[in-house]
Amino acid sequence: MNQIGVIMGSDSDYKVMEDAIKILRQFELDFEVKISSAHRTLERTLDWVKGFENQGGRLIIAGAGLAAHLPGVIAGATTLPVIGVPMNSGPLNGVDALYAIVQMPPGIPVATVGIGAARNAALLAVQILAAGDDALRRKIKNYRAKMAEDIAAKDEALQKKLNED
Amino acid sequence: MNQIGVIMGSDSDYKVMEDAIKILRQFELDFEVKISSAHRTLERTLDWVKGFENQGGRLIIAGAGLAAHLPGVIAGATTLPVIGVPMNSGPLNGVDALYAIVQMPPGIPVATVGIGAARNAALLAVQILAAGDDALRRKIKNYRAKMAEDIAAKDEALQKKLNED
Amino acid sequence: MNQIGVIMGSDSDYKVMEDAIKILRQFELDFEVKISSAHRTLERTLDWVKGFENQGGRLIIAGAGLAAHLPGVIAGATTLPVIGVPMNSGPLNGVDALYAIVQMPPGIPVATVGIGAARNAALLAVQILAAGDDALRRKIKNYRAKMAEDIAAKDEALQKKLNED
Amino acid sequence: MNQIGVIMGSDSDYKVMEDAIKILRQFELDFEVKISSAHRTLERTLDWVKGFENQGGRLIIAGAGLAAHLPGVIAGATTLPVIGVPMNSGPLNGVDALYAIVQMPPGIPVATVGIGAARNAALLAVQILAAGDDALRRKIKNYRAKMAEDIAAKDEALQKKLNED
Amino acid sequence: MNQIGVIMGSDSDYKVMEDAIKILRQFELDFEVKISSAHRTLERTLDWVKGFENQGGRLIIAGAGLAAHLPGVIAGATTLPVIGVPMNSGPLNGVDALYAIVQMPPGIPVATVGIGAARNAALLAVQILAAGDDALRRKIKNYRAKMAEDIAAKDEALQKKLNED
Amino acid sequence: MNQIGVIMGSDSDYKVMEDAIKILRQFELDFEVKISSAHRTLERTLDWVKGFENQGGRLIIAGAGLAAHLPGVIAGATTLPVIGVPMNSGPLNGVDALYAIVQMPPGIPVATVGIGAARNAALLAVQILAAGDDALRRKIKNYRAKMAEDIAAKDEALQKKLNED
Amino acid sequence: MNQIGVIMGSDSDYKVMEDAIKILRQFELDFEVKISSAHRTLERTLDWVKGFENQGGRLIIAGAGLAAHLPGVIAGATTLPVIGVPMNSGPLNGVDALYAIVQMPPGIPVATVGIGAARNAALLAVQILAAGDDALRRKIKNYRAKMAEDIAAKDEALQKKLNED
Amino acid sequence: MNQIGVIMGSDSDYKVMEDAIKILRQFELDFEVKISSAHRTLERTLDWVKGFENQGGRLIIAGAGLAAHLPGVIAGATTLPVIGVPMNSGPLNGVDALYAIVQMPPGIPVATVGIGAARNAALLAVQILAAGDDALRRKIKNYRAKMAEDIAAKDEALQKKLNED
Repeated sequence: MNQIGVIMGSDSDYKVMEDAIKILRQFELDFEVKISSAHRTLERTLDWVKGFENQGGRLIIAGAGLAAHLPGVIAGATTLPVIGVPMNSGPLNGVDALYAIVQMPPGIPVATVGIGAARNAALLAVQILAAGDDALRRKIKNYRAKMAEDIAAKDEALQKKLNED
Repeated sequence: MNQIGVIMGSDSDYKVMEDAIKILRQFELDFEVKISSAHRTLERTLDWVKGFENQGGRLIIAGAGLAAHLPGVIAGATTLPVIGVPMNSGPLNGVDALYAIVQMPPGIPVATVGIGAARNAALLAVQILAAGDDALRRKIKNYRAKMAEDIAAKDEALQKKLNED
Repeated sequence: MNQIGVIMGSDSDYKVMEDAIKILRQFELDFEVKISSAHRTLERTLDWVKGFENQGGRLIIAGAGLAAHLPGVIAGATTLPVIGVPMNSGPLNGVDALYAIVQMPPGIPVATVGIGAARNAALLAVQILAAGDDALRRKIKNYRAKMAEDIAAKDEALQKKLNED
Repeated sequence: MNQIGVIMGSDSDYKVMEDAIKILRQFELDFEVKISSAHRTLERTLDWVKGFENQGGRLIIAGAGLAAHLPGVIAGATTLPVIGVPMNSGPLNGVDALYAIVQMPPGIPVATVGIGAARNAALLAVQILAAGDDALRRKIKNYRAKMAEDIAAKDEALQKKLNED
Repeated sequence: MNQIGVIMGSDSDYKVMEDAIKILRQFELDFEVKISSAHRTLERTLDWVKGFENQGGRLIIAGAGLAAHLPGVIAGATTLPVIGVPMNSGPLNGVDALYAIVQMPPGIPVATVGIGAARNAALLAVQILAAGDDALRRKIKNYRAKMAEDIAAKDEALQKKLNED
Repeated sequence: MNQIGVIMGSDSDYKVMEDAIKILRQFELDFEVKISSAHRTLERTLDWVKGFENQGGRLIIAGAGLAAHLPGVIAGATTLPVIGVPMNSGPLNGVDALYAIVQMPPGIPVATVGIGAARNAALLAVQILAAGDDALRRKIKNYRAKMAEDIAAKDEALQKKLNED
Repeated sequence: MNQIGVIMGSDSDYKVMEDAIKILRQFELDFEVKISSAHRTLERTLDWVKGFENQGGRLIIAGAGLAAHLPGVIAGATTLPVIGVPMNSGPLNGVDALYAIVQMPPGIPVATVGIGAARNAALLAVQILAAGDDALRRKIKNYRAKMAEDIAAKDEALQKKLNED
Repeated sequence: MNQIGVIMGSDSDYKVMEDAIKILRQFELDFEVKISSAHRTLERTLDWVKGFENQGGRLIIAGAGLAAHLPGVIAGATTLPVIGVPMNSGPLNGVDALYAIVQMPPGIPVATVGIGAARNAALLAVQILAAGDDALRRKIKNYRAKMAEDIAAKDEALQKKLNED
């Protein structure tokens, strides 16, 4: 049983969405990945959503660019939480995708993260799933601690470099 | 048999979409109007699209605001031409809806008109249907001529006013 | 024990954030509400976050306008999921708040909803909490069904009106 | 007799507009291509429009960048449907062209597609012409089916790749 | 013989363009005013431009909103200088008109003033015409001096008010 | 005596402003070029403006980027027409410069051309100076005719290429 | 001797800039207020700046709207710190003024506050002047404490209201 | 005792913030540099701010990108003046960082400079510190004079080049 579904509308989104997959692996979560479109393969997308929900899935991460409908269409088809990742594709730098994902109408929310922020989408998923799972919560706290240590180490390296200058 | 389907996601869009309906009546075209949402009633929307296409419908005008998915979702579900009307609702003045409608991914176009331009959506529909229909083409040419006369009359009124000043 | 914390930086945000509170009441969830600022009362804010997390809180909804730092600062201080609501305050129509909430740096996500979309923030919270709670999942499914019925009713009313015209 | 006219203001637009031409060839439609400007060769442009309409043309695809007037000027000179393609040229990433094409005043619509979306312009033309043409409708349905298969194939390839990892 | 032509696409623009007319009257310049559209009455517009140029006109002020093509189309039809006034009409606050006027392609410039700045358009016309006309140059210098005096007077009034507080 | 002054705030603007200089040379107009800043060398700039006006200068072309104050400051210091060229420098793609040049307050206009459109600035200058100068007017009409021929030639080349395909 | 100079380009800016004056009075700082324009009364503005600097002024707060040049022009004319307040005037909601103030070229900074944020401009001035002035620093700390108390009081009022509901 | 603190959220900001450090060195000011995040190491950041203020620090320069909270969070934690530098990182070209820094709520100002303008941030710091320090004021005046000379030299070089052409 996969807790998390990661879906994207095109294989060209994979190089960004892979950031999410790396995090999910790092946190040892069960997930599945799907390429399916809101426009070109809508029924296939809806079938996958239904199947994922029925087999016990817990939440969905959906990435899309341009007039990014995939996260919102999925959000309308399930009551599982949907995390939307606006892709930076095309000439508008992802502002089109951001608006098309975050500005959902009343009643059907999408939890939107930053443009291209697939890693943050996965971390949000981890934080949501950590609710009833103390082991996972410890992992996310460790991950945070590690990030803080990295910054401290970078600061230390900079202090050293500046002292040497 | 209705040639044109006019659909909107919410009854709050009706006051704008009514501009389209007035034009369709003026040109004596058969049309039907539907309120149905891409998110809250997706299956009902898809059923309507299929039914409209099967009964011989020729094109669809779809109006939506915010993260406006309705025109694009319909465009993915039919090969009839879909005309999208971005609504000026919410704080972003309709730029969100414009981007969410016009920036469709490769393969599934939506013929987008200006923000709130339901009247132009209907006129575009008339122009498309006028292709094999000489009577309709004459009507649209008369409509254009009438617009030109209106401008000439307004110009004349202004000249008069300025001469009197 | 309150599962959900609703926090805003100013009492002027209350008239919008009240939409979230109405939903939480409608779904009979335990919640608490807090006014505290990321800038003017940072320590008080951080104390509240720690206290809320320690007493068993499950997620936080944070609304803020302008250079909206509250959701992000809270997200950095807890591993609970944080839902951010960009307020439409000031001359930039909430685009400033949207960017300041959604564009979080790598590592610390905020689940962002639309500008002023407090209702959607609460519904997202409900969907997240419904994971291990079948009763709550039924409620959200009923809520969705009710929305669909409303649209169908509005459509029916429109058909009637159009037939009468 | 050419059904479709493809016009652009500058030969520098050709590398994008060629995407439209490829689609029109793929669907075996008769078309003609023209380089003519709304500003530098307005009369020549208007002559071409009149000639194209008189010889039985069905619709026009017009691409333009910057203060993109070509689609709108043509739309004012004919009652044939005009599909506008905003070019991504210059420092504003095509937003200038998008606004200058889509925001047409009441009475004269342009069917606007996404920035640089010449391929979608051609597909929209195909969908419009397919109305009374069952063979063409079948072709567009096959094209859609092919796109869906491509996505399914890419999904399958991804599943395989992920299983191997 | 009128030196200046003031043209607008719609009588709804008159309430803004009147600011230009007031300036032209104040500077006792000969001018004519025209309502004519780039889309709805293109030939009439082009006829007026040719006539205005042939009768000895010196420059044209053109105001337009939305996808504002009027100034650019006129600029392509004459070598007289064209001053463009983007109108603040519609939901985009005149940014659409600004882009559609100022971003003219290479070869055909439009001298663009601020959104809704009809008064500045007329003052720019005065400054251009003042080149070989010492009396007019004196008038514009007096106008500037008067503006400076107004500011000094307002400053004085403020100083007085602040001293009284 | 130089009729046209071309000024820019930084030598880094020269590579764009050179497009203006080429046009002025092509039309055999007398001009001078100046590098001087509105902020770093304000007095020097004002001295140059006064000197240029006193020696009989007819108009000024001013290019600037970022918070582009040079054209507006010069416009306040002279009643000669000032043509402003917004530079595409820095991360905002010249929108900052465009707004800082075109949105001048009431009373002091700047004739703004497109972002980076130094060539159009020079052509506008030519058109303004051509008013009382039949030879110059002929030149600009020839220039236009040449542009039209270029487009016709490019169209012809394209037709040939398409026939060969 | 006035430590702070408050300058604005137009008396229409006074209703916003008054927020700064109230703060300066509350902190019992010596200040003077000036209406003078960067374009219409440039020399008068520069004279005031020189005079203010020579009499021992410490910093300048400058408010301006549209193509807001006043803060930047002053910043170029003095080495005193200049705080710029972008005004929300005209159709662009103050984005034009924000860009025209904050995007100053290298070498001449303006300390920019939010759109319409005259109060914050004055508080920034207080914080700058508090450097060598313990009494003033205490005042600003008290002001901060008072703001924190206000938020706490509003929170308390809200808790009471919610308990009563 | 360091008068100036320079802080950034990530070592990737260093290559831009180094421009500030160069200026501070050139003016021989005491400063310290810190890498610490508003989200990942908030307590460490707050500790540094308190320590810096207590040891006699005079002002803080803070650089951050995306949803740039660092300058604002620091501004809330100290009454020292805070200068914010919006970084040009990510797809929005620094507009997100600009809004997230400059649009601070009433009561807590951040002195914002241009996107990526670390050099200007340092010069603003110098100007602020020069208040009671005649030697520093002379240095900044010399720096300004040097900039003016550079422009004059570049102008001279251009004149020479143009004469040679």
